[in-house]
Amino acid sequence: MLTNADIKEIRKLNERSKARREAGLFVTEGPKLFMEAPLEWVKKIYVTEEFLEGLKDGREGSLRISDMIGWMEHEVISTDQLKKISDTQTPQGILCIMEQPDYSLHDIIAKEDRPKLIMILEDIQDPGNLGTIFRTAEGAGASGIILSNGCVDIYNPKTIRSTMGSIYRMPFIYTDDLKSTVSDIKKEGISVYAAHLDGSKCFDEVEYGDSAFLIGNEGNGLRDETAELADIKIKIPMEGDLESLNAAVAASILMYHHYISGRTHI
Amino acid sequence: MLTNADIKEIRKLNERSKARREAGLFVTEGPKLFMEAPLEWVKKIYVTEEFLEGLKDGREGSLRISDMIGWMEHEVISTDQLKKISDTQTPQGILCIMEQPDYSLHDIIAKEDRPKLIMILEDIQDPGNLGTIFRTAEGAGASGIILSNGCVDIYNPKTIRSTMGSIYRMPFIYTDDLKSTVSDIKKEGISVYAAHLDGSKCFDEVEYGDSAFLIGNEGNGLRDETAELADIKIKIPMEGDLESLNAAVAASILMYHHYISGRTHI
Repeated sequence: MLTNADIKEIRKLNERSKARREAGLFVTEGPKLFMEAPLEWVKKIYVTEEFLEGLKDGREGSLRISDMIGWMEHEVISTDQLKKISDTQTPQGILCIMEQPDYSLHDIIAKEDRPKLIMILEDIQDPGNLGTIFRTAEGAGASGIILSNGCVDIYNPKTIRSTMGSIYRMPFIYTDDLKSTVSDIKKEGISVYAAHLDGSKCFDEVEYGDSAFLIGNEGNGLRDETAELADIKIKIPMEGDLESLNAAVAASILMYHHYISGRTHI
Repeated sequence: MLTNADIKEIRKLNERSKARREAGLFVTEGPKLFMEAPLEWVKKIYVTEEFLEGLKDGREGSLRISDMIGWMEHEVISTDQLKKISDTQTPQGILCIMEQPDYSLHDIIAKEDRPKLIMILEDIQDPGNLGTIFRTAEGAGASGIILSNGCVDIYNPKTIRSTMGSIYRMPFIYTDDLKSTVSDIKKEGISVYAAHLDGSKCFDEVEYGDSAFLIGNEGNGLRDETAELADIKIKIPMEGDLESLNAAVAASILMYHHYISGRTHI
């Protein structure tokens, strides 16, 4: 049974990063984010009768979801109850409480990608930008993502939605000491590049091997002391009168350039 | 004087694309979007006393804005009044009514860029994605943007904000006949590429000259009949279990690849 205390608890998990951090939990909504979730992350499933009915259409996704729900404990709630715990205007019939994963820097560095690609994000504030970076990182075969503690919470419901499932597949860590984390990365022989408006080279003039890219805050870019940690500052050239590119776009251009140039060299 | 009728009118312009279309107007907010506006677009300026006071700090942007306000008629309103006509939670002291520009396909095709880069967008729905595509297009030196009538309104306040000023500098047209527009583009010797999950070539395997890229809707991609209009379908390769990239990211990767490969060939 979904008690009032449960409702309050779930709303807190949706609204407050502190509540999520303390509980070690987060919330996902909708069939896509349920279907793609690693089973061991799923702690609790709330589902409406209508949603269960809809699964009988026998489509591929429906079969997979039916199976998953069959294996796991779940609680059937009313559409009104779902609306009370949902972060969206039009809930999609299923909401899950998930356990937060616990990655280490080693999980990111040790991935046997070739060449390695690591994104280091400083104080990214927009949930959509962060989610989009996760999504593109998966596409570009990145090993993982490192976030400064000043970044928006990856478990923010908007961020989760815009990862389109990459949250489950892209290892990540938050660090409160970017300097020492970057130093650990360099010790592994990974070159660190800072995306910077005053970069000494254009991004396409560099031959990339194992690489990490430092991406700064939307409004302010990288802090000077952070940019100084890089082996080279690189810039993305721009025509016109633009001040800068969107942070997720800048990150995506660099990731795909790294990915594509790595592919064609093999 | 800002009358109640004015307030109603401006709110309509902020909220409804139909009202904007009928009036041939749109609304911009904040100093950045005022400062970068072509003067001939500006129809009406509303500004608060506090904002005018703040300009006395003598900073570069403030001087420019002071000059512009000095040249033009403007109306001083209270912060409360500004809140009533603003689309944002925290208005930034200045709001303008702008005339919509009137471009033709010729304005886009005739630009003497080398090589040409034109984006053709089908049914892009997210205001942030559309604005981001404009922003990156300026950075990548695009000649202009063609939008299907099913795209979100470029004059949507969220879209305007996310263009970061590129709305003023990037020519664009809406078309209700994508097929004939694409045909007109081809007649100019411009190659048309469709970004497609089933592309026959990876995007980096093509030598680009004068080019137009077809980008589809966020959820559904390009319609089959639209994709068929292209000379070649190209794909952006993806690792992992991703269904697709974000539409603005996909467009940005293609634009920058075109831009960079054009630069290094010169």
